[in-house]
Amino acid sequence: MNTNNILFFSGDDLSKILTMDKCIEAMKGAFAALSSGEAIMPLRTGLEMEAENSTALFMPVYLPAISKVGVKSITLARNNPGKGLPLIHAMITVFDAASGMPLAVMDGEVITAMRTGAVSGLATALLARSDATCAAIIGTGPQGATQLEAVCAARDINRAYVFDIQQQRAEAFAAKMAEKLNIEVIPATSPDTLKKADVICTATSSNNPVFMDENVKSGAHINGVGSYKPDMAEIDPRTIARAKVVVDQTQACLSEAGDILQPIEQGLITADHIHGQLGDIVTGKVVARENSDEITVFKSVGVAVQDLITADLAIKMAKELGVGLDIAL
Amino acid sequence: MNTNNILFFSGDDLSKILTMDKCIEAMKGAFAALSSGEAIMPLRTGLEMEAENSTALFMPVYLPAISKVGVKSITLARNNPGKGLPLIHAMITVFDAASGMPLAVMDGEVITAMRTGAVSGLATALLARSDATCAAIIGTGPQGATQLEAVCAARDINRAYVFDIQQQRAEAFAAKMAEKLNIEVIPATSPDTLKKADVICTATSSNNPVFMDENVKSGAHINGVGSYKPDMAEIDPRTIARAKVVVDQTQACLSEAGDILQPIEQGLITADHIHGQLGDIVTGKVVARENSDEITVFKSVGVAVQDLITADLAIKMAKELGVGLDIAL
Repeated sequence: MNTNNILFFSGDDLSKILTMDKCIEAMKGAFAALSSGEAIMPLRTGLEMEAENSTALFMPVYLPAISKVGVKSITLARNNPGKGLPLIHAMITVFDAASGMPLAVMDGEVITAMRTGAVSGLATALLARSDATCAAIIGTGPQGATQLEAVCAARDINRAYVFDIQQQRAEAFAAKMAEKLNIEVIPATSPDTLKKADVICTATSSNNPVFMDENVKSGAHINGVGSYKPDMAEIDPRTIARAKVVVDQTQACLSEAGDILQPIEQGLITADHIHGQLGDIVTGKVVARENSDEITVFKSVGVAVQDLITADLAIKMAKELGVGLDIAL
Repeated sequence: MNTNNILFFSGDDLSKILTMDKCIEAMKGAFAALSSGEAIMPLRTGLEMEAENSTALFMPVYLPAISKVGVKSITLARNNPGKGLPLIHAMITVFDAASGMPLAVMDGEVITAMRTGAVSGLATALLARSDATCAAIIGTGPQGATQLEAVCAARDINRAYVFDIQQQRAEAFAAKMAEKLNIEVIPATSPDTLKKADVICTATSSNNPVFMDENVKSGAHINGVGSYKPDMAEIDPRTIARAKVVVDQTQACLSEAGDILQPIEQGLITADHIHGQLGDIVTGKVVARENSDEITVFKSVGVAVQDLITADLAIKMAKELGVGLDIAL
């Protein structure tokens, strides 16, 4: 019934195609569009599958600037990590908004990791001290890897401390990332070590803060990407309370981010404590860091524009590089 | 990052794999599950793209009975028909609910046409007079074709009258379907012809009734599949008012189906006029046709369980038949 073709990208294809620099650049436009109301993005639909101990999320979005509409479907299977399988699986479908034709289908794991890194990279570029040289990564899964990569793309980082509740995993991560990024990467265990970090990234699935406020260096910037539900939190509420807090999307964070919702519930802050959205900083609507001592926090739950803009970048790059399958639909 | 494979089915693959009989059988289980609360199906997300004169719909669902979760993404590009392009494009993604792994991605147009036919086939089997021999199809697009195929699967139809505002399209449809189904298919224009039909299917995108109540034969069964928005309607409100009305899902029809909402607004019926859901008839919770004179109407807006159960059937049949692509993800 249909004579058009569709592009298919595997995770390997996407790893070849996407560079962190280009992803960060793409994020800038996406978040500016989001904050200016130029993206149509309904709240994502969550589907709890209790019998399976898993969750599915569906994240649709329409970006008029690129005339594309797409959806990321993501599953979180909580029995997986215990079996050595990835927690997250995802697929992305992209359509041309005018003709309605499907353009591409792709693995969503690499896109998720890259776009989650890229938004922290953008936040780091806009909010961290310009002289930042030391990073800390808490949580050394696939998201932790792109967090470090993104922070290194945004600042001249020469050393990173990495923390994980599984020490072995931290060691393997350190070896791999040191080689990939050509910096010193050191597995760490003492909370004191955190005090050396100019930029801290949390990428865990924790329900409780993964560091204490006492261990945050003056002038540090923090990217929190792990918590995406009200009962999840990674950042000490006291840090949230004294920091300049920027979010990916206010509405999404006020309905999903435990890192924001729990301090509100505890009476430590009100919703007004949110300084602004990342896109507001991109467009200059709100001010970024104002001095070298303040703590800045960027909290993201992940929004669909990130996926669509990264998928769109992949489509463009794939055509240039001749990567991916072109399949008759 | 990922070493699993995914199945890919084109529209052609699906046309080879899916038979109407098997699709109707699959619908039975899906609607029983839906009515028993054994399917988790949020209301679909609609995304209006005004600048493009198009709409995107995202329809997620989880079916515990088959331990699968999936989403159909569908676009309706209203500028397309004028250019000779299909109004509807769609893609379906299916995941294993327990492991969260993506299992298959497939064209959604053939699935949509087959499942929309199959549910009318099931409704016809449950509601039409058992001695029905004559069908009428109003609207001769891809949906009209599977409507006729499904009605023929449910009853011993030997003649069908087909109506379309484009006479040429009706003629081409008649020739094609007569050959495919080995019955008499006759392009018709006079509303009087409709009086011969035991089963009437409407599959148009009309905003106004496509037939008048006077032309409905005593004892007729009507399947209405075209209207899926409050401002769309195909069935004469007077027919709705005097018929036994069964719906695919009450909640969805009361929020989307103009064929139900407009007679309510006009004060002709109340929501209580809905006799029951199709699944309630499958499970015996409500009674079907009670005599050979009553008019029965099955109104469907289309629900995601239909897509998932049909996609699941495709996965099973494809494995048996060795059809489809097996791609590294």
